[in-house]
Amino acid sequence: MTEFDAALEAALPAESAWPATIHRAVRYSLFAGGKRIRPLLVLAACDAVGGERARALPLACAVEMIHTYSLIHDDLPAMDNDDLRRGKPTSHKVFGEAIAILAGDALLTRAFHLMVEMPADADADACRLRLAATALLGEACGTTGLIGGQVVDLESEGRAIPAAELEQLHRAKTGALLSACVRGGALLGGAGPDEVERLGRYASSIGLAFQIVDDVLDATEGAERLGKTAGKDQAAQKATYVSVHGLERARAMARELLGQALAELEPFGTRAQGLAELARAIVDRRA
Amino acid sequence: MTEFDAALEAALPAESAWPATIHRAVRYSLFAGGKRIRPLLVLAACDAVGGERARALPLACAVEMIHTYSLIHDDLPAMDNDDLRRGKPTSHKVFGEAIAILAGDALLTRAFHLMVEMPADADADACRLRLAATALLGEACGTTGLIGGQVVDLESEGRAIPAAELEQLHRAKTGALLSACVRGGALLGGAGPDEVERLGRYASSIGLAFQIVDDVLDATEGAERLGKTAGKDQAAQKATYVSVHGLERARAMARELLGQALAELEPFGTRAQGLAELARAIVDRRA
Repeated sequence: MTEFDAALEAALPAESAWPATIHRAVRYSLFAGGKRIRPLLVLAACDAVGGERARALPLACAVEMIHTYSLIHDDLPAMDNDDLRRGKPTSHKVFGEAIAILAGDALLTRAFHLMVEMPADADADACRLRLAATALLGEACGTTGLIGGQVVDLESEGRAIPAAELEQLHRAKTGALLSACVRGGALLGGAGPDEVERLGRYASSIGLAFQIVDDVLDATEGAERLGKTAGKDQAAQKATYVSVHGLERARAMARELLGQALAELEPFGTRAQGLAELARAIVDRRA
Repeated sequence: MTEFDAALEAALPAESAWPATIHRAVRYSLFAGGKRIRPLLVLAACDAVGGERARALPLACAVEMIHTYSLIHDDLPAMDNDDLRRGKPTSHKVFGEAIAILAGDALLTRAFHLMVEMPADADADACRLRLAATALLGEACGTTGLIGGQVVDLESEGRAIPAAELEQLHRAKTGALLSACVRGGALLGGAGPDEVERLGRYASSIGLAFQIVDDVLDATEGAERLGKTAGKDQAAQKATYVSVHGLERARAMARELLGQALAELEPFGTRAQGLAELARAIVDRRA
């Protein structure tokens, strides 16, 4: 992924640009060893519909910025109060709370800014697609997506929540952005509405599988492998797929969802190889 | 401004929408009696170039959302730690820090989302203008604008800063967004590059005047009139136009800048009446 990281770096103001603190803080979290699952989904979805990767690259950068902003803000003392992320001290531990809040704000702002930067002579279709993909992203990040999921996650601490509510929470908190990656990547790659809809179903399945695997790993793996505090869900009495369904059933659900995701890819043939590999990697991951 | 407030309300998810907490928090700050200077600038700039107000309305709503997000985050305990804003308890005093952070995030996200929502059959020029206006907004809100200004503001506490640095700080923190309001409103109203540039000079003058008047009011008015803690700048040993230049010189600078702003409006004739009134209101305000 060094090619992608170079694009991500190029999408930021220079590290020494005024004021330097904020550009250091933004880079600290953005280049902290993330797995780049979201940008990979954007680019693989573009591949699946035979699109040009360059058209989807701004979205690939934007979704990684947004994912990073959400981690920085979620880790804050007022939220999940996490000291460790990807094996490194969290942003507020290094830069203080004020700069961590602003670094998150900066990543969110730059993500949308990047999406709307177009050459003055861009053709009308490219402009329309860019607006539509940015609107998908806006919806995924809003109060019915990422932000709403975090609100409900905070409100669910120490409370037994029903399985249906748990699914709604994770569809908002994790699923919405993953779905915007896949559908947005396909859209920018030139997909028709039917293809976008089918890939949306693939995204729903892997989104849910992703969260289930997260819960399984939190319950079974140590902090060293995860690079973040383990067993935190149980300590916070958070409802998880493991606490609601048990470990074995949770694992089986993730496998079933993988099967459903792969089935949606069949009409795309070998072009969807990237999306298939990502689905398997999400379910088989150990961290 | 009740017509504008209705548009702003319509641009939000319903107050009862899932999850209700965040939609209550967003409305609490957005409808807290703000003077709506930024949306008024957007619409007045659109008028000045003979544009259709409906084309500029999404930007008018977006800038008020962004201004409100920046106030919520700036007021947080980790930042300026303010308990009072517009005479009411700040967001984190009412909803707690976590929801206040997320309410700011939600307003920032919705602002950009609103800007990129276009009907599928929108014409190519409308799409291009919308992208360009959103890019102006993105730049104004980023690390060389709003966010960068707040970073430097935090870093300047208790430190004597030179007049040139103070001006750079406020150009970023206040001026950039005011400039994006004026230039963006003109752009969406159909202005040519020369008109946008001229109105950009008007915006620079009133942006600086705005900050100088803020500093004068902080030094001279009581908390009751301001609806926020007064004398805070001095208590925090912040560099202000008053502390650097003295009260009388600061007042004179604001009058000079008003004169420069009004001079830039001359070629627009009576259409620029709204912008002229706003410039006078900014310099003459008492709160």
